[in-house]
Amino acid sequence: MTEAAARTRRTRGGGGAARRAERTSVSFDTAKYIERNIPNYEVLSEAALDMIEANAEQILEEVGVNFVNNPTALERWREAGATIEGERVRIPKGLARELCKTAPASFTQHARNPERNVVIGGNTLVCAPVYGPPFVRDAAGGRRYATMDDFQKFVKLGYMSKWLHHSGGTVCEPTDVAVNKRHLDMLLAHMTLSDKPFMGSVTDPSRAQDSVEMCEILFGKEFVQENTVMTSLININSPMTFDDIMMGALEVYAQNNQACIISPFIVGGAMAPVSVAGTLTQVLAELLAGVAYSQLIKPGAPVIAGAFVTSIDMNSGAPTFGTPEASHILYGAGQLARRLGLPFRSGGGLCGSKLPDAQSAYETAHTHNAALLGGVNFMLHACGWLEGGLVSSFEKFVVDADQLGILHHLARGVEVDENAQAMDAIREVGPGGHYLGCEHTQKNFKTAFWRTDVFDYKPFETWHDEGARDTQTLASARVEQMLATYQQPALDPEIAAKLQAYVDDKKASMPDAFV
Amino acid sequence: MTEAAARTRRTRGGGGAARRAERTSVSFDTAKYIERNIPNYEVLSEAALDMIEANAEQILEEVGVNFVNNPTALERWREAGATIEGERVRIPKGLARELCKTAPASFTQHARNPERNVVIGGNTLVCAPVYGPPFVRDAAGGRRYATMDDFQKFVKLGYMSKWLHHSGGTVCEPTDVAVNKRHLDMLLAHMTLSDKPFMGSVTDPSRAQDSVEMCEILFGKEFVQENTVMTSLININSPMTFDDIMMGALEVYAQNNQACIISPFIVGGAMAPVSVAGTLTQVLAELLAGVAYSQLIKPGAPVIAGAFVTSIDMNSGAPTFGTPEASHILYGAGQLARRLGLPFRSGGGLCGSKLPDAQSAYETAHTHNAALLGGVNFMLHACGWLEGGLVSSFEKFVVDADQLGILHHLARGVEVDENAQAMDAIREVGPGGHYLGCEHTQKNFKTAFWRTDVFDYKPFETWHDEGARDTQTLASARVEQMLATYQQPALDPEIAAKLQAYVDDKKASMPDAFV
Repeated sequence: MTEAAARTRRTRGGGGAARRAERTSVSFDTAKYIERNIPNYEVLSEAALDMIEANAEQILEEVGVNFVNNPTALERWREAGATIEGERVRIPKGLARELCKTAPASFTQHARNPERNVVIGGNTLVCAPVYGPPFVRDAAGGRRYATMDDFQKFVKLGYMSKWLHHSGGTVCEPTDVAVNKRHLDMLLAHMTLSDKPFMGSVTDPSRAQDSVEMCEILFGKEFVQENTVMTSLININSPMTFDDIMMGALEVYAQNNQACIISPFIVGGAMAPVSVAGTLTQVLAELLAGVAYSQLIKPGAPVIAGAFVTSIDMNSGAPTFGTPEASHILYGAGQLARRLGLPFRSGGGLCGSKLPDAQSAYETAHTHNAALLGGVNFMLHACGWLEGGLVSSFEKFVVDADQLGILHHLARGVEVDENAQAMDAIREVGPGGHYLGCEHTQKNFKTAFWRTDVFDYKPFETWHDEGARDTQTLASARVEQMLATYQQPALDPEIAAKLQAYVDDKKASMPDAFV
Repeated sequence: MTEAAARTRRTRGGGGAARRAERTSVSFDTAKYIERNIPNYEVLSEAALDMIEANAEQILEEVGVNFVNNPTALERWREAGATIEGERVRIPKGLARELCKTAPASFTQHARNPERNVVIGGNTLVCAPVYGPPFVRDAAGGRRYATMDDFQKFVKLGYMSKWLHHSGGTVCEPTDVAVNKRHLDMLLAHMTLSDKPFMGSVTDPSRAQDSVEMCEILFGKEFVQENTVMTSLININSPMTFDDIMMGALEVYAQNNQACIISPFIVGGAMAPVSVAGTLTQVLAELLAGVAYSQLIKPGAPVIAGAFVTSIDMNSGAPTFGTPEASHILYGAGQLARRLGLPFRSGGGLCGSKLPDAQSAYETAHTHNAALLGGVNFMLHACGWLEGGLVSSFEKFVVDADQLGILHHLARGVEVDENAQAMDAIREVGPGGHYLGCEHTQKNFKTAFWRTDVFDYKPFETWHDEGARDTQTLASARVEQMLATYQQPALDPEIAAKLQAYVDDKKASMPDAFV
């Protein structure tokens, strides 16, 4: 279904979307997801791609993959034509690629505010915040375990960030809420404190089911069955292992037409070969098996082919980020995903630094650049990621989110219409003149250049007199100012009450568990 | 002359190079200049390039350029077929492009240590440090006027920086030496404290002549006439003005077969139109006129087509760096330079930040990335640039220089030979295993991944116990450690004495001037 058809259908479909739009007041300007008007950057030749594809098929047929604790999955694979031996699934050459063909090349994830819907695939790039850290950090409080209060603050910051399109999922782990209940509070926060699209829980199939049920309250049961309203993160246990928890969550989501990112999680040299070509071979084999499995569950289920790959510091064993090898893998994986005809997830604002300092910024900028140029369609961890994903940083969240504006402007490409050619301006100003006052400049300067909302552009003396603030200090002030002026987007009180009741009932129905 | 021919010739040429090599002891490992095994990134279509080229020729013919206080230049242009009116030179369509054809597509700049020779053009990238700041900054001393002592320290750091290929020119302005004499001390420092290639003085034609004469002492008179031993920076006063000082220096260098970067210096919206396509049109017109003029002086003189373009913050009027518009211009200018068949200069470690903080790193990394992918052949300001070029930062110098290693590794591209394919490793490890101990990893891990010499990769607890140092603090320690272990590269004492005598005599021959 095309975007236009989707809009028509939703408008025709009884006015649910229209009613939701009316109930939603928008306090903050949010940019539409990025649509690239620039080419993708590619590092692998056709011959190299052919070779990696052949090698991946060879690995699937010869070595195979493991589906752990999952007799149903093994049975599905057997029926599809794979060879099963214990938990090992060996997939004949060509089978996985054939199965992947029913996955859509692009899909729309709906938000409760239809203006925030995102299209994932083709030439788009959708940015979502950091996912998963157990710690948070800010300048005032240092590094500490994350709480639900922190989580809500990140959702608010994400809602207010102009260049961020997606509210994300586990923006930090709310460690003050029981493990078996925190997904409820997290989803409630995304649904009520923001109107942007979000991710569902994957830590247990039952929690994926809860996520679907809460979406049915928010969007309407029929709407959820017909439309994608969540994109959730299914990691593969590299090398080549698919565990029952993640596969269980995938099964719930695929059966309910909800999207999943199927993503190897690789520290190169540990979970994959220490070479780029070898890692890409394994990534492709894992993606072929994982995406094919999603289509065995439900042909046509929306998926994103992911590649989360870092390098390793062989001195310390620590994962490293923003490295050239990680960029090579991102560029190569993007090429492989496009040849599969699938939306592609990779990149982020990744860094290994403990602080939101220069190291974190160099590493993040390298990853941001590679993600834009490498054709990434869904960028998780686009802002706020610190210390190899152990920490969600408040300051880095707003700085990275500001940086995403650069990607928006880069993606626009270069206009070459008559106004952009500016021939009359060049004639008017001539040798030795200046352009500040000329008509063309006056007409165009407001939109000509991207401008930061965080960084310092002031003259040295002004900057010095204002306290010689570094980036972290400027960012702390921005976090404070944003949270102080946050206004909750309107939501039908009846829906809000039903969501709260669902969460309360669920939480009351089971004892706290902290594993 | 090809590289191979040049080597042969120099070896044949009486043993001067061989003798220099014997006299030179190398204390520090320096990487060869970057050779790209990856494609260039291009944002403009053929149609857009054709249009910009046609517009630039139109501007040259219709509006023209000014050559100021330079009757000789006007006469050269008149003889070549241009129309002269006052100081205005109008160049008929096609003439400038035709004249540019005698400029070499690539040339070798020789260093006194032949192992440090660089090839500029084609698929190479040569990195040189920051150029021009009147101030320096370090964590201990803050921001202050630069001195000759600072200058010498930067030359030493550059010599010791593995990924930096070039010693540069005015790495900071030694403000404690008279303006009319400081070029002598600066050249002496490059010649004696480093064995990497360097730049000559351009602040007056007589100082360019001094630079040539000092090179004749260092390399031998005959060698200098037959080989390029300096690459110097000739800025165009955009829009479309060529002043007599810069053109006078260009004349000296071109006549002596020495290379010049001919480079518009543009803050977009002030010195060029506020649009990317308009700026590229003006950049190309200026380059065509400037490079053509170098060939009128001496056909075949080596030149680099430069594009130093920043955007402007229309709120404060400040130049801004690392912006998406600057990247668009870099990518586009690279395409135009390649169509002209000329080596291309742009990029750098550019930033507007006052401190070597996160802002400076984001901005720098964007510019580094664009320079590598955009096909830059000579990157001035690759390390140490701070505060829009007002400040040379000691800490940023070593951090940026470390970052250049990333560009080296990215440029290598992706190997796909049997070892890189790693099929046996994937077979050996299998689903659920790990690669740390496998034979392929053991064989390859030492060279597989780029590794920083500055950043922190340690576990949080170790990092915390060692003082929770941020990037600037780590960089300060590295600066101190490098300067403490610096060893001067050997130089024939006779040559060293002659150079010192030349500098002393010149300085004694004229009173100090501070303008």
